Amino acid sequence: MAKYSIGIDYGTLSGRAVLLNLETGQEVATSVKNYTHGVMDNELPDGTKLGPDWALQHPQDYLEVLQTTIPDVLKKANVSPDDVVGLGIDFTACTILPTYKDGTPLCMVEKYKSRPHAYVKLWKHHAAQAYANKLNEIAMERNESFLQRYGGKISSEWAIAKIWQILEEDEEIYNEMDRFIEATDWVVMMLTGNETRNSCTAGYKAIWSKREGFPSNEFFKALNPKLEHVIDEKFSRNILPIGSKAGEINEFGAKLTGLNVGTAVAVGNVDAHVSVPAVGITEPGKMLMIMGTSTCHMLLGEEEKMVPGMCGVVEDGILPGYLGYEAGQSCVGDHFYWFVNNCVPQEYFDEAKKLGLDIHQYLTEKARGLKPGQSGLLALDWWNGNRSVLVDADLTGLLIGCTLLTKPEEIYRALIEATAFGTRMIVETFRESGVPVKELYACGGIAEKNSLIMQIYSDVTNMEIRISDSPQTPALGAAMFGAVAAGKEKSGYEDIYDIAKKLGKIKDVVYRPIPENVKVYDKLFAEYKILHDYFGRGLNDVMKRLKKIKQGE
Amino acid sequence: MAKYSIGIDYGTLSGRAVLLNLETGQEVATSVKNYTHGVMDNELPDGTKLGPDWALQHPQDYLEVLQTTIPDVLKKANVSPDDVVGLGIDFTACTILPTYKDGTPLCMVEKYKSRPHAYVKLWKHHAAQAYANKLNEIAMERNESFLQRYGGKISSEWAIAKIWQILEEDEEIYNEMDRFIEATDWVVMMLTGNETRNSCTAGYKAIWSKREGFPSNEFFKALNPKLEHVIDEKFSRNILPIGSKAGEINEFGAKLTGLNVGTAVAVGNVDAHVSVPAVGITEPGKMLMIMGTSTCHMLLGEEEKMVPGMCGVVEDGILPGYLGYEAGQSCVGDHFYWFVNNCVPQEYFDEAKKLGLDIHQYLTEKARGLKPGQSGLLALDWWNGNRSVLVDADLTGLLIGCTLLTKPEEIYRALIEATAFGTRMIVETFRESGVPVKELYACGGIAEKNSLIMQIYSDVTNMEIRISDSPQTPALGAAMFGAVAAGKEKSGYEDIYDIAKKLGKIKDVVYRPIPENVKVYDKLFAEYKILHDYFGRGLNDVMKRLKKIKQGE
Repeated sequence: MAKYSIGIDYGTLSGRAVLLNLETGQEVATSVKNYTHGVMDNELPDGTKLGPDWALQHPQDYLEVLQTTIPDVLKKANVSPDDVVGLGIDFTACTILPTYKDGTPLCMVEKYKSRPHAYVKLWKHHAAQAYANKLNEIAMERNESFLQRYGGKISSEWAIAKIWQILEEDEEIYNEMDRFIEATDWVVMMLTGNETRNSCTAGYKAIWSKREGFPSNEFFKALNPKLEHVIDEKFSRNILPIGSKAGEINEFGAKLTGLNVGTAVAVGNVDAHVSVPAVGITEPGKMLMIMGTSTCHMLLGEEEKMVPGMCGVVEDGILPGYLGYEAGQSCVGDHFYWFVNNCVPQEYFDEAKKLGLDIHQYLTEKARGLKPGQSGLLALDWWNGNRSVLVDADLTGLLIGCTLLTKPEEIYRALIEATAFGTRMIVETFRESGVPVKELYACGGIAEKNSLIMQIYSDVTNMEIRISDSPQTPALGAAMFGAVAAGKEKSGYEDIYDIAKKLGKIKDVVYRPIPENVKVYDKLFAEYKILHDYFGRGLNDVMKRLKKIKQGE
Repeated sequence: MAKYSIGIDYGTLSGRAVLLNLETGQEVATSVKNYTHGVMDNELPDGTKLGPDWALQHPQDYLEVLQTTIPDVLKKANVSPDDVVGLGIDFTACTILPTYKDGTPLCMVEKYKSRPHAYVKLWKHHAAQAYANKLNEIAMERNESFLQRYGGKISSEWAIAKIWQILEEDEEIYNEMDRFIEATDWVVMMLTGNETRNSCTAGYKAIWSKREGFPSNEFFKALNPKLEHVIDEKFSRNILPIGSKAGEINEFGAKLTGLNVGTAVAVGNVDAHVSVPAVGITEPGKMLMIMGTSTCHMLLGEEEKMVPGMCGVVEDGILPGYLGYEAGQSCVGDHFYWFVNNCVPQEYFDEAKKLGLDIHQYLTEKARGLKPGQSGLLALDWWNGNRSVLVDADLTGLLIGCTLLTKPEEIYRALIEATAFGTRMIVETFRESGVPVKELYACGGIAEKNSLIMQIYSDVTNMEIRISDSPQTPALGAAMFGAVAAGKEKSGYEDIYDIAKKLGKIKDVVYRPIPENVKVYDKLFAEYKILHDYFGRGLNDVMKRLKKIKQGE
């Protein structure tokens, strides 16, 4: 009788479950649930307005995913809960919420439901930028050694900036919360009743390291005296390595999901990180790009190097035994969605419809007809700030080279190219810092669906690119970790390396750089780099000054 | 019995006639004819493809304007040709064509109809940029004194760059043409049979001056030995001052227009220049902005000053007795048209329709709801190059400050503001060069229709703005010059000053700067200026390099 594992992947707009056959490696069923509240960036459910750069979510949506998708995959595949040995979770991060000790989110308590700070702060909540800036200043002054592990900068997207914002802007919520917990760990707690903290989010998002632990209480005190004991008061120092078992499904979890009490649950994990074993990467030098609304870059290394602006290096952070490097671009697919929603004339939609294409497919086909450099356009891919190399959420997007003959498909292609240049900046920065990048892998909706984008990435980076063969790579990776949590006896696999080698999946197609395109893109990238440094490294801080003028300063 | 004069205004897309009652100053009838061939920037009528930056017209369209609109205004107003004493022409410039001695355009000869260089080169034909660059280099090397009169640079839009392009790219056409003549003078020739050349286009577009004449034959020889005698071979040294009579309507002209043989015709003139008397400006310090697809800035001065990047200073070039200064922005309304055609989603069109507004009105209302600086966007208004201060058609447009929340109306407003910043650059450059600018006047479609734009211009320049009271200001000015050509006995007016003071028209409404907006725009203009200089003055020539990459270099 085949055994199964379930992986649940929590994305920005929806959650999806995949049911993995542990004998064949087949993903036998999948199910998606869109979040009822989506991303709240304008107002709370009761109409309370949010400031600029806010992005919240509602934790109830996460439970609905479990409730809907798990019974659905079991039913679709006609698999009994008895044959499901384990379950793994992956999530966007740092996506984090204030709760009471028993896990109750503050936003689900009547008296706090109009308080923005009571909700889940989504990874792309950027309203804590001012706190991140101050944090970085203080850390630099104090010469804190942890800065090196994060490319010299702590992001406003991460846990400490986010909790500091709560303390400064709504102290009552800060005082009231017993826990500030990653959504991935919160979902595990809902399923098992155990509060666990995983080494991946602790390491990449909360400044923890296996060797040095969290920053000192003195450092937190220097931010604000009330933060002195923030780790002991709101987080936890009990960090479990990824690949561990967090516990077993309890009564509440069983009722919610239809799985058996006692099913193994892996500690929480992160969407990008779980994807590495899912494409079969088990060694250094192979960079995986997880390409969706944003892109994460995952890379294993053997030594700890300081890479400017990388998001983090965490020992055992991706796979045990290696340094796990993470870098990222905060806006990739989001560029194209913004463009389609705000800048595309109706005749393009009409023509797409006539051809039976969606608007992205149609624009892609129009853009495919252009040669590199033909539009005369160049963009900086900072519509959502810059997450790697520069690590600055206050940077904004730029488009240069517009003429009266500029067409929508030209801008569309320029945005694609800009994201590819952003990736090349990251690859080159790793190399210059002594971390080898020899091969590129990609997964996610864009990698899977858009051959033009992948060819452009190959041409811009002058590297071959291999593509994941699973349409839900993170969920597959989460299911792998779920199987590992169940132990060899139940799952048949020794560890994550064993299952990654056997069940990791890559498509046959390989994107290979086209020499004549590489030549043109080398020229365009040189221009990108000049603008990147001019606007991104302080030579002209116009983007920041415009933000200040916008805020009425 | 009232006497009348007719003004014909040739714009970029259409020609219009106005019938002016010389007693009352009333514009008693008007008539518009769209050009059959419009602007040819992709291909010739027979499908022959044009290169990038080309913009041609068909001279047949100009005759159709005469044929259609003159009988139409007479009929509409029920006025007899016997009561029409004069006719004046104004035109876009430098809009210029190769002809035989008798005026036959080469493009109307069967064997040349597939040859792009046989057609009219419209003012915004920018494919001669390389020749303008070389011309400027050589003029600088030779220390040619004429450069000072043109802000240090001769534009690719002007006559010499355009004829040089013909010589280099289609020598047969060059050799075949007897004349290279401004369209305004060509239309006058069609009406009267006389070839005349007017001081306005000769001065502003063909490097002629009253005191120094044309550049030396040695200079032209330095460009290309075959150009040594270009003035004597293809142009004429017989230049008539504006306000002169070119001749009288001949048989052909009478047949074409329905006017009487013998009706006085003024020498050709230019749209922007004839507008100055039409709004009643007769003295220095009052700058007129003619705002349409592009904007021209007209200013009278008492001394000849070197103003960086102005389009030209010509003695008697606008009104006799003064130095006439011209500056310009090559893309104003064109920005908004480009944006609406390429970047506005259907829901905006739907909503506009629901409200009974056209899309520009709707976007204007949405943009009106924004405060200065609120969008965080800033643009450089160079979608069609830069015509003044920098004089560089190879510059391109830039938009900075984009985020995922950026809305179409925010970009629309940023484009409006960018054109206002461009105007402020021009005003400040005049002042810094010792040419006073004390008051602003505006005419043209935008000035007349869009109060948001005019308020932004007032806020950005911190100046009051007065608006022409004629909906067809240039045609009114042309009619005034037509009346002057007829002489005092027939028209009742002494000279252009006399008629300008009596019939020039200004609306009662005045736009006044709003102090709190002025404050924010001062900050934004400071940012504009930094980017203007960085991209426009050689600190980062990325725009030019992108154009080179585009051209495959």
